[in-house]
Amino acid sequence: MNISSRFRAKENLQLSDSDAKARPLGNGSDSKPADKLTTLALAEKISDYQNILYAQKQHKLLIILQGMDTSGKDGTVRGVFGQINPLGARTVAFKAPSSVELEHDYLWRVHKEVPGKGEITIFNRSHYEDVLITRVHDWIDQEECQRRFTQICDFERMLSETGTTILKFFLHISKDEQKQRLQERLADPDKHWKFDPQDLIEREHWARYQQAYASTISATDIDHAPWYIIPSDSKTQRNLAIAHIVTEKLESMKLAFPPGNSDYKDICVN
Amino acid sequence: MNISSRFRAKENLQLSDSDAKARPLGNGSDSKPADKLTTLALAEKISDYQNILYAQKQHKLLIILQGMDTSGKDGTVRGVFGQINPLGARTVAFKAPSSVELEHDYLWRVHKEVPGKGEITIFNRSHYEDVLITRVHDWIDQEECQRRFTQICDFERMLSETGTTILKFFLHISKDEQKQRLQERLADPDKHWKFDPQDLIEREHWARYQQAYASTISATDIDHAPWYIIPSDSKTQRNLAIAHIVTEKLESMKLAFPPGNSDYKDICVN
Repeated sequence: MNISSRFRAKENLQLSDSDAKARPLGNGSDSKPADKLTTLALAEKISDYQNILYAQKQHKLLIILQGMDTSGKDGTVRGVFGQINPLGARTVAFKAPSSVELEHDYLWRVHKEVPGKGEITIFNRSHYEDVLITRVHDWIDQEECQRRFTQICDFERMLSETGTTILKFFLHISKDEQKQRLQERLADPDKHWKFDPQDLIEREHWARYQQAYASTISATDIDHAPWYIIPSDSKTQRNLAIAHIVTEKLESMKLAFPPGNSDYKDICVN
Repeated sequence: MNISSRFRAKENLQLSDSDAKARPLGNGSDSKPADKLTTLALAEKISDYQNILYAQKQHKLLIILQGMDTSGKDGTVRGVFGQINPLGARTVAFKAPSSVELEHDYLWRVHKEVPGKGEITIFNRSHYEDVLITRVHDWIDQEECQRRFTQICDFERMLSETGTTILKFFLHISKDEQKQRLQERLADPDKHWKFDPQDLIEREHWARYQQAYASTISATDIDHAPWYIIPSDSKTQRNLAIAHIVTEKLESMKLAFPPGNSDYKDICVN
């Protein structure tokens, strides 16, 4: 059994705080230095694969990161994709929509940013916000939410059918862990810029968010666009798991440098 | 019965040259000057409606023009939408895809250009080329074509569900009429720039194009994104029909200027 399948969302997903603390790849807390080294080695492997993917210009890889505030989306980008050449990889952070974005359908700004051939694109938040924050705050009703689930499934199926590989990660933290991370942001001058008072307001809706995530993931998990539930109270374990899953996917793609043009093989460059 | 419904595509559509010559709104060939005046009046009405649509910033109107070479797509833009203020109306001509466009799914470049709230957007050709020219030249097989029909229906349903009104026009000309128009382009120095030798190659596939159009229209005609078959051997009749249909749609939207802010009603501007 490969590592990816251990993290694949189960049917009728439930989310509990204990899942967030799980360490399915750890051998006890003393494994941290070794786990970090493994993650670094995997991150370098991902970088090597990206290099081939870029040269081959065939595959498109879309990685979607979702999770509560402080769940570690930025940290994942740094820890797992930090070794990649920025030439062929791009991170797109979706914030609150701009006024022009609001004048269009919610998939408009997202579709614009999907990867082209030879590209890896990482979405830091995504169109999934349009069925999460919107639902928690009752900006959309259940009927509209179901409509969007269908629209999202149609959209991702079209992307998959036109050659995009999609991996979706839910970075799962516990409420206690979020408390600690928010307090750190307040206490540490280097982290203070990341503190947003809005995060405290969203935190009050914790239970509704967990329910909204669980039902969203259940409604949109499918083999061509799978969700992985990543226990993320431990940053090391989180990066290790995601690095493994991305590496396994890239391995399965059978990437290869395109053949050189043999006409030029014996040419002397003056 | 309104005028639009007379032109709505029938189930199991067949296209014949005689349909292209039809004059369903004409009272004989001497009606030409009167028809032109009516079209101009309708075009001005469309312009007035667009002004309200722009101010109201609620509706989005997408108009798709498709047809064989020389069928009059440019002429329709000029004749029917020529009175509109360019501020809130935009024409997008889709040519052969660029290399960057080809690196993405075929809906990528199209989705980017859909209208925002308060906008009218006219597509001169569209994503329908991806199930027409591609099929006539066997660049895609039947299975891929069916997949695209579903993708296009999903895409247009999403646009409709998120507030876009869609009208699709097939400008239907006969093979004889195309011959005459191509010869005019060759003979008239002012029209010569529009002549493209590629048009002669596509003309050889006339029958296959007619079949591809008929099956595409049948597969993608639906109440929220209807196809209208416009007999277009007569340019006057073509513009008149399209102007009527667009006007009827705009009328049905019950457009209204947004209410002014009464707080400012009695303010004196110094």
